[in-house]
Amino acid sequence: MNLRAGRLKKQMSDEAADYTSSLSSDMVIFEADIKCNFAHVLMLKEEKIIDNDIADKILEALDKLKEEGYDALTFDNSVEDIHMAIENYVTDIVGSDAGFMHTAKSRNDQVATDIRLVLRDKITDIQLGILEFIEGLTLFANEHLETVMVGYTHLQHAQPITIAHHLMAYAQSLKRDYERLNDTYKRVNLNPLGSAAMTTTSFPINRQLTTDLLGFDAYLENSMDGVASRDFISETVFDLSSLMTTLSKICEELILWSSYEFGVVQIADEYSSTSSIMPQKKNPDVAELARSKATIVNGELISILTILKAIPYTYNRDLQEITPHLWNSIFISEETLNIVTKMLLSVEFNKDRCLELAGSNFATVTDLADIMVREKKIPFRTAHKIVGRVVNEAIDQDKNINSKFIDEIAIDLDFDPLNLDDSLVKKVLNPLENVKIRSVPGGPSPEMVKIAISNLNEFLDEEFEKKGI
Amino acid sequence: MNLRAGRLKKQMSDEAADYTSSLSSDMVIFEADIKCNFAHVLMLKEEKIIDNDIADKILEALDKLKEEGYDALTFDNSVEDIHMAIENYVTDIVGSDAGFMHTAKSRNDQVATDIRLVLRDKITDIQLGILEFIEGLTLFANEHLETVMVGYTHLQHAQPITIAHHLMAYAQSLKRDYERLNDTYKRVNLNPLGSAAMTTTSFPINRQLTTDLLGFDAYLENSMDGVASRDFISETVFDLSSLMTTLSKICEELILWSSYEFGVVQIADEYSSTSSIMPQKKNPDVAELARSKATIVNGELISILTILKAIPYTYNRDLQEITPHLWNSIFISEETLNIVTKMLLSVEFNKDRCLELAGSNFATVTDLADIMVREKKIPFRTAHKIVGRVVNEAIDQDKNINSKFIDEIAIDLDFDPLNLDDSLVKKVLNPLENVKIRSVPGGPSPEMVKIAISNLNEFLDEEFEKKGI
Amino acid sequence: MNLRAGRLKKQMSDEAADYTSSLSSDMVIFEADIKCNFAHVLMLKEEKIIDNDIADKILEALDKLKEEGYDALTFDNSVEDIHMAIENYVTDIVGSDAGFMHTAKSRNDQVATDIRLVLRDKITDIQLGILEFIEGLTLFANEHLETVMVGYTHLQHAQPITIAHHLMAYAQSLKRDYERLNDTYKRVNLNPLGSAAMTTTSFPINRQLTTDLLGFDAYLENSMDGVASRDFISETVFDLSSLMTTLSKICEELILWSSYEFGVVQIADEYSSTSSIMPQKKNPDVAELARSKATIVNGELISILTILKAIPYTYNRDLQEITPHLWNSIFISEETLNIVTKMLLSVEFNKDRCLELAGSNFATVTDLADIMVREKKIPFRTAHKIVGRVVNEAIDQDKNINSKFIDEIAIDLDFDPLNLDDSLVKKVLNPLENVKIRSVPGGPSPEMVKIAISNLNEFLDEEFEKKGI
Amino acid sequence: MNLRAGRLKKQMSDEAADYTSSLSSDMVIFEADIKCNFAHVLMLKEEKIIDNDIADKILEALDKLKEEGYDALTFDNSVEDIHMAIENYVTDIVGSDAGFMHTAKSRNDQVATDIRLVLRDKITDIQLGILEFIEGLTLFANEHLETVMVGYTHLQHAQPITIAHHLMAYAQSLKRDYERLNDTYKRVNLNPLGSAAMTTTSFPINRQLTTDLLGFDAYLENSMDGVASRDFISETVFDLSSLMTTLSKICEELILWSSYEFGVVQIADEYSSTSSIMPQKKNPDVAELARSKATIVNGELISILTILKAIPYTYNRDLQEITPHLWNSIFISEETLNIVTKMLLSVEFNKDRCLELAGSNFATVTDLADIMVREKKIPFRTAHKIVGRVVNEAIDQDKNINSKFIDEIAIDLDFDPLNLDDSLVKKVLNPLENVKIRSVPGGPSPEMVKIAISNLNEFLDEEFEKKGI
Repeated sequence: MNLRAGRLKKQMSDEAADYTSSLSSDMVIFEADIKCNFAHVLMLKEEKIIDNDIADKILEALDKLKEEGYDALTFDNSVEDIHMAIENYVTDIVGSDAGFMHTAKSRNDQVATDIRLVLRDKITDIQLGILEFIEGLTLFANEHLETVMVGYTHLQHAQPITIAHHLMAYAQSLKRDYERLNDTYKRVNLNPLGSAAMTTTSFPINRQLTTDLLGFDAYLENSMDGVASRDFISETVFDLSSLMTTLSKICEELILWSSYEFGVVQIADEYSSTSSIMPQKKNPDVAELARSKATIVNGELISILTILKAIPYTYNRDLQEITPHLWNSIFISEETLNIVTKMLLSVEFNKDRCLELAGSNFATVTDLADIMVREKKIPFRTAHKIVGRVVNEAIDQDKNINSKFIDEIAIDLDFDPLNLDDSLVKKVLNPLENVKIRSVPGGPSPEMVKIAISNLNEFLDEEFEKKGI
Repeated sequence: MNLRAGRLKKQMSDEAADYTSSLSSDMVIFEADIKCNFAHVLMLKEEKIIDNDIADKILEALDKLKEEGYDALTFDNSVEDIHMAIENYVTDIVGSDAGFMHTAKSRNDQVATDIRLVLRDKITDIQLGILEFIEGLTLFANEHLETVMVGYTHLQHAQPITIAHHLMAYAQSLKRDYERLNDTYKRVNLNPLGSAAMTTTSFPINRQLTTDLLGFDAYLENSMDGVASRDFISETVFDLSSLMTTLSKICEELILWSSYEFGVVQIADEYSSTSSIMPQKKNPDVAELARSKATIVNGELISILTILKAIPYTYNRDLQEITPHLWNSIFISEETLNIVTKMLLSVEFNKDRCLELAGSNFATVTDLADIMVREKKIPFRTAHKIVGRVVNEAIDQDKNINSKFIDEIAIDLDFDPLNLDDSLVKKVLNPLENVKIRSVPGGPSPEMVKIAISNLNEFLDEEFEKKGI
Repeated sequence: MNLRAGRLKKQMSDEAADYTSSLSSDMVIFEADIKCNFAHVLMLKEEKIIDNDIADKILEALDKLKEEGYDALTFDNSVEDIHMAIENYVTDIVGSDAGFMHTAKSRNDQVATDIRLVLRDKITDIQLGILEFIEGLTLFANEHLETVMVGYTHLQHAQPITIAHHLMAYAQSLKRDYERLNDTYKRVNLNPLGSAAMTTTSFPINRQLTTDLLGFDAYLENSMDGVASRDFISETVFDLSSLMTTLSKICEELILWSSYEFGVVQIADEYSSTSSIMPQKKNPDVAELARSKATIVNGELISILTILKAIPYTYNRDLQEITPHLWNSIFISEETLNIVTKMLLSVEFNKDRCLELAGSNFATVTDLADIMVREKKIPFRTAHKIVGRVVNEAIDQDKNINSKFIDEIAIDLDFDPLNLDDSLVKKVLNPLENVKIRSVPGGPSPEMVKIAISNLNEFLDEEFEKKGI
Repeated sequence: MNLRAGRLKKQMSDEAADYTSSLSSDMVIFEADIKCNFAHVLMLKEEKIIDNDIADKILEALDKLKEEGYDALTFDNSVEDIHMAIENYVTDIVGSDAGFMHTAKSRNDQVATDIRLVLRDKITDIQLGILEFIEGLTLFANEHLETVMVGYTHLQHAQPITIAHHLMAYAQSLKRDYERLNDTYKRVNLNPLGSAAMTTTSFPINRQLTTDLLGFDAYLENSMDGVASRDFISETVFDLSSLMTTLSKICEELILWSSYEFGVVQIADEYSSTSSIMPQKKNPDVAELARSKATIVNGELISILTILKAIPYTYNRDLQEITPHLWNSIFISEETLNIVTKMLLSVEFNKDRCLELAGSNFATVTDLADIMVREKKIPFRTAHKIVGRVVNEAIDQDKNINSKFIDEIAIDLDFDPLNLDDSLVKKVLNPLENVKIRSVPGGPSPEMVKIAISNLNEFLDEEFEKKGI
């Protein structure tokens, strides 16, 4: 039965029906659509807009469908979308009274409601995944509070850090990715139901009641906006782009670090592959794919933003094309978050290599300049100039840096000799000592990282509790 | 004087210096950079990391520069960026002690701080622009509470609405655009200063003090994250994309409505142009350009996301390329918001045409179906079927709809005659009456729109107050 | 059997295997992979790199698989991709000698070859679709050589045109979309086979022979480039973006034109839908979805370009993520091209409405200015000024334009009266006459459009012939 | 003087005039606009559409302007664009007869013509830059025919290659980037002039004559298409995206290779910088910025495609927003191409380190498997299995690979011993020897690369000649 022939005399061609069908991605909203219908009919009953008996029969049928699941629906060419399939199901049980289910409701407000119902759960799932990743990072960091490695700027050795400090940088990015989803959730968890096609209805519906029944924070305050707006989707997908960007950075580092040249990290065999022609290879395939999948979400984002651009109010069929890209972004983000979490938390750091790199290539000389300033009260720029020349000469002459060598260069540059204490020079040039003196909030010293971990754990406790875990 | 020769023996080529220079967009952060230096030196003085005398001389020089303005700086090829230019200025006044200004600070944390300082003001400016637009919309809506027009889905006549209701849909979108910026602001207004190059410093700096001095909400909790993260930028640009999408939808409607065929609206001459060869034209150029400029911000967003993708920690020079695209997005959004506000609030609606369109083409028949359900307790789907046929026959036979005509068709479809009261049929088919009966929260009835306006005004009062206006 | 364990001691986890599997999109290259293996083995046999007997057994097994089809393959968790599944199939028949199939070949060059084999056919399919659309347009245009409608700039009435002329504008865009694919085809139809993993092989393979066997134009001249390059994909997807942009413009016009306000066109019921709550609606759903699907291909393009950005040579697993987006772009473009072709060629133009619009709103006055210049030798700018005022006064005074009225205004503007012949004024203001006098190459006069159609038909004949049709 | 007041009664507001002005990017088309006007007026004169005297005066004025240059123009608020400024200039000299210049021409066709005139030159400039880069690469490669380095897949050591072979991979990518621009050029070098506003004109203009005068290959065959189409721009920008992608890959490799860990390459000081706080740093800033600028062009591309999406025919003001993004893409691509060329051609390869890496980590074992197949006729998969185990054991036991070791493992795996000649094993495991035996077309052997270089030089000779160099 074609429920919606309206004034058209011919049916859509099969090709066009295929082209316009949303069925392939409607499965995602199956349960939400039942839920939405249920709440709507319950409200119609409460408000005495439809008869108790009819309402109860419909509610019962919806319950039955919920139990039987998606496969209980039948689809043929006349069934354009899931809403129709569900209505057909109810009609088969209830008869033509099923038609009352659609009183004061349109597919325009219903689909917007369904998407929001599903999305809020998906957001929560991803948020939990992020929290678990952060939790894993704090545990991992705890093991590496004093494991020194070199930190990079411009992919060049900059200064010694610890692995713990680096992992905490990941955690901070992830925390923002989490918080962004919290903010977006506020704009997702709003109820468009009751907007009907675009102007609400003349039936005296109770929007607050469906809002409460469906667990929404509030209803949307303008019916045209209710059916036309999809910025809650683009915003979510941006948040996922941001999350995937964080993950892609982590994966980029794993790819670099697991190269023969860096040799800093071993990715577990479970996340690696070898080559059909080069048996000695151990390829970081998972990390590479995660890196590339980040860009897929960027593509989805631009597709969605472009669909939304410059279409007039209110509902346009273009909007249908947005939803599959939302679900795809969700799906990719979820699986990538999950696998990157496991992969990262199972890597093995090669501590010797990490220390070796931190000690080579002068990554500690910044502090040499700093102690000149601190101990000898010379301007930073002067210290910088001396140290720059010290490094150049040490490389050219293949020499170690000590107080005497420094003073020779200072004199050569027309400065006074500094007479730095040699043990101080040695200490500051030692990577681990070097890390330890950076004991400023946010710094890499073990003491400060412990505080950072403790702060994060507090955050985790609070958020897990809010999510009811 | 090249302040940073370090260990390189040759200077950058002029071409490379040009290619890597950020000067063209550094002007934006001129005042912020002074502010940042000022707070940093004040803190160094308070914490007795540098001498009082030296500190005071530097602070004085910075004050002088602030007064003299950007033009007091001198630029030559050795000056790579604004930080160097400012340091040169201070050095000219203070001598080599100016070098102390750079103690415990790097350009990496400084530039991140500067951008955040400027950005938070820009965000506030745009937010004020949005609030003013919303305010204008509420005033405009108040004039059109009973001005009926037709509402569209699929660009086809759907149901009668009022202009006020439509304007309130704009306002709701804009409200979310505003709120998103509020959320982003929380992640912008954080202090990276003290992260130094990437690992903080061994000087006992006081990060809380600079945080307070600069009016930040808190400092960033990890120094590597502090210099590497730019998600506060991509998030802002996404918010602007969203805002521009709202504006582009409004402009699309103005373009449509000002066409000869729609004839619904007159755009003021101030925002129109004519043609060099077709003098009768009145072209909606401003609306067209605003529509296209929305896509520019989308392009900026994708550029930024792509730069951020898969670069390892921490600072990479790639990041420099992000900032100009932030400023460009801000600039485009600000000017577009401003001009679209003025253009929209000065349009003249052609009320007669609006009413005419609302009354033609059966936009009120949904309610005919609704009263059948309500008055005669028939299922919605049955009513839908009857009304669909009624419309088809009315078009084919060019007839008016009345109770008798409805019953003829009901009988023809094997349903019972409905015996609807003719005055009720007439009332429900009258556009204004039709709008008035949609008196559900979020609906278009004048009464409900008044409430919506009042709610929005409350919101405006609160937010203006928060912004100190 | 895991064919490629190499030096790894543990297998990939199931999750990671799922995450990295390309199977879901490998079905597309099933036949191409057989073809590629076949040509490779034939070459190995010809060059006596493997034994005749073994080669023949493998070739036979491949033939058998080709006949049995995709379902003959078995997949379990150890089967990572289609290449493995096919090798397993051959191994089941041939035994361990199947391993010779992989001599001097890697999955890196094989997958690149497969994709190119499939893609060149897909390109040809889409090209044929474009040619058919153009052909339909020329036939349609032939029916409307003298059907006048108004042409728009800025969505404002500009000048009268004919429907035929407008359809020919579509055809010209499509012709370029076609030609771009021709150019791309040259870069697609190149043979990477023999590049092996990245450095060719020490076996004396004959690359020219596989190139000939597979119908490629040439082989790729550098083995590293052969396995690393995917610009032939991004280029194809750009071409599809371009095609989809053309289609989206056409759909945008159909959506506008089928609105109640324009009323210029009736889209066939087969490509329309109605509303569940508004039975009078006839919605252009197909056109709306086609409009939105254009943006999907843009999203795919940006995903692909972003994956390609900044990854080092040669093969990286990231590349795997590109292919599904190619196939998706192809699929969307093919179905959209097909349905837009049918939809457009079945629309019905409302000729009366077209003429009415062309005659209203002064769309012909440009030529009034032109005849002033031509007949009276006054500068164009002067004519422009007079006509501009004429239009303004005609609107204000609701008057018809004639010679006398023109002269009054000319005098009022301090110019000499023009004494234009009134029949000439009338003629030039008549839409059809107006179109007819634009008889410049590329112009809308029926005579010129006939030439344009004839030129296009010549082009079609040539291209259909090249494609063997 | 406002030349185009038409029927509007009020002027555009200053803000709106600013907002809609194209002046900031019009400077690029200054000379082209003169050229276009010149050709048009010459044609009008030839065809006797305007008087000889008037034509000559206008032509003279245009010549004068060309000589005086851009600064001879005056701009005030009434001057909306460069066309107006030029017309004003001519009017100042010629008087009101200057108005004849605009006969049978509109800004719509003129601006499209101007852009195409400039763009074809810019394309040629960039193409020359690409040819020069390729030329430099062939010379550079010639020096490194036998400099062995390791080739990567998945950023893991794969097989030995030579630097020459790697550079030739770059060259092949660049060659395609060049060829794509050749194809695009065909669609750029077409003449829209004569399309006028959108429907040509009733004046008997000679489109072939302006086509010849302006050096176009042909005129565009449909006037509506002539003013509405901008796909020649999106296509060009895609080509530039592709070129920038090639450059970004090269830069990514330079960044990796110049890291301390890889140590493969020294970037010249001219393209490096150091740090203000870390004097030992040598940062690859130019490469990093080039990497990020690639994404800017991607952003421009998506902006342009999105503007073009779903706007109806013909000219819409949105199109104006496209051009600056074209010029920006051109500018970025030109400067990046130039600087990357110079940077790459001045890098110094660390040959010892290259050889060391090629010899470590088993990059040659694929050929060990190959010789087993070739010499001992065992299936490739068997060889693969043995070699995989050999590598594992060699790593675990820290042993060298020789024939005896191989046989022990073969036996352990239940295969027959292979009795490979030890000198053959040694040879195949030597990186340079290993490279030399890959003497298949497209392969890395010096002999094959010489052929590749020679082929490229032939290509260069031909193309330089075509470009007249």
